[in-house]
Amino acid sequence: MTISIDDVVAASRRLGGIAHRTPVLTSHALNDLFGARVFLKAENLQRTGSFKFRGAYNAISALDPQIRQRGIVAYSSGNHAQAVALAAQLHGVEAVIVMPTDAPAAKRDATLGYGAQIVEYDRYTEDREAIGSAVAADRGLSLVPPYDNPFVMAGQGTASLELFGDVPDLDAVVVPVGGGGLLAGTATVARAQESVVAVYGVEPEAGDDTRRSLLAGERVNVPLPRTIADGQQTTAPGLLTWEVNRRLVDDVVVVSDDEIIAAMRLLLDRLKTVVEPSGACGVAALMNARIPLRGKRIGVVLSGGNVGADRLVELLAR
Amino acid sequence: MTISIDDVVAASRRLGGIAHRTPVLTSHALNDLFGARVFLKAENLQRTGSFKFRGAYNAISALDPQIRQRGIVAYSSGNHAQAVALAAQLHGVEAVIVMPTDAPAAKRDATLGYGAQIVEYDRYTEDREAIGSAVAADRGLSLVPPYDNPFVMAGQGTASLELFGDVPDLDAVVVPVGGGGLLAGTATVARAQESVVAVYGVEPEAGDDTRRSLLAGERVNVPLPRTIADGQQTTAPGLLTWEVNRRLVDDVVVVSDDEIIAAMRLLLDRLKTVVEPSGACGVAALMNARIPLRGKRIGVVLSGGNVGADRLVELLAR
Repeated sequence: MTISIDDVVAASRRLGGIAHRTPVLTSHALNDLFGARVFLKAENLQRTGSFKFRGAYNAISALDPQIRQRGIVAYSSGNHAQAVALAAQLHGVEAVIVMPTDAPAAKRDATLGYGAQIVEYDRYTEDREAIGSAVAADRGLSLVPPYDNPFVMAGQGTASLELFGDVPDLDAVVVPVGGGGLLAGTATVARAQESVVAVYGVEPEAGDDTRRSLLAGERVNVPLPRTIADGQQTTAPGLLTWEVNRRLVDDVVVVSDDEIIAAMRLLLDRLKTVVEPSGACGVAALMNARIPLRGKRIGVVLSGGNVGADRLVELLAR
Repeated sequence: MTISIDDVVAASRRLGGIAHRTPVLTSHALNDLFGARVFLKAENLQRTGSFKFRGAYNAISALDPQIRQRGIVAYSSGNHAQAVALAAQLHGVEAVIVMPTDAPAAKRDATLGYGAQIVEYDRYTEDREAIGSAVAADRGLSLVPPYDNPFVMAGQGTASLELFGDVPDLDAVVVPVGGGGLLAGTATVARAQESVVAVYGVEPEAGDDTRRSLLAGERVNVPLPRTIADGQQTTAPGLLTWEVNRRLVDDVVVVSDDEIIAAMRLLLDRLKTVVEPSGACGVAALMNARIPLRGKRIGVVLSGGNVGADRLVELLAR
């Protein structure tokens, strides 16, 4: 085990008064539709618009102050970028974000808005990890990876720690999977509960690297996923996240881009809440009965809401 | 005075455990933008998707059980319809809703979904009050008006009662105005606070009957407003709401349809929350500095979220 429940509890203490304790949304309409009690942890309402703030802040907070003072570097398609930018700003230190040239404009603007500097790379030809490491070495900055780091995983787990605290007796918890940081943190919390809680990850069909890895019993690479779920365009599970998830996760299921859009629409119509495509994955899995539902109490993490009005219109008009 | 703070407190007791105590949303981005601390009372997350549930439930709850048992009738362009339909269903009694033929499909479907029967009329040629009264007399049903009723006004006031309870020391409170029920309830609560709280109403430009009435010192009629804010297409203040609002309201300001759409977009981008046009009026007033803002603590009621994904796309694509 690379992280324990104690690490998540420690992260929760660091985040106290800094991260939002996001609300748990419920809807009679959704419960009726699914024949289940559904509890939506609204991380789309988290600071910077996604759960990523939790892990980034926890990781930066845990750095030696002398080292932290020299600055932070991160690579990210977007939500981790904003998260690191704000977390660095709150610590009063500089942040450099390595970001793909085709990152959503809303995420790019928000990152700049938090005072970070952006270094661009081509998602389809260049290696962001190499660029990130080079920038880190070059300028003496500390790299905060998007998922493959114990403090990041533990930070992400605090969302579920709050969910289990607010909603007793959950039968299952469902979260989107990109690199697997949120899933690893969530699974660590779920396994520390007194009752048995099933842990499900959800991937876009085009990027089912964690599902394939679980089936194969080892880390499997997939081609770079082309999906609307830009938060989940990973090609393989992380090394550390894999070590956690291969032991603790019950299943990883997939949803199509069309199913994701239908879930975004349902959340908008019935919950009046805006999620980005990755944020709708869990609800898409429920709508299409990819996990056992009937009569159960199910927690779902709405991971983020950074889609922007223009892109939202584009997706819903499909 | 047609209602007092005691009536609102009594309504609050009736609604306890039935209506949602909706969250108060905040955003660093909005505070920075306005140079003010803004507290958004998210009645778009209320049951049936708007504050209207509060007044409808309170009014039905206050009826003599023998009389209530015979059923309820209401006329409404939408949100009051859904509110009465659910409130009647929760009391186990029949509801008939007199609804314009051009009511938004989402609101119509939801009303049917709560088990109500719909009677249609033409908004531009027929008189809904006459039809409602005829149905009431004909079938022995109790009419629950959308705003001009003390129990409805008091029920609507409970939203602000919660807001003042959750957020101390507000300098001002801003709510949309249609017939004036929400404004009357809000003003009644605001005037019962120990500190001075300014009370502002916001109307769409095309339907500024309450603003004109305040200027004239008497109830003024306007032509039937053509505006995207379908919750505010009233031609004159109510008789009872006027008696409250003319005494207790500081000012009523107006916003254009384009300003409303920009506010819907801002709320979607930054708060990840979906409001219908009327629900965005308050934020539109803030965005366009129609009320004094700088350095103040301002409560704004997001009155409803029943816009539907298709209509939202249509409005945002303008």
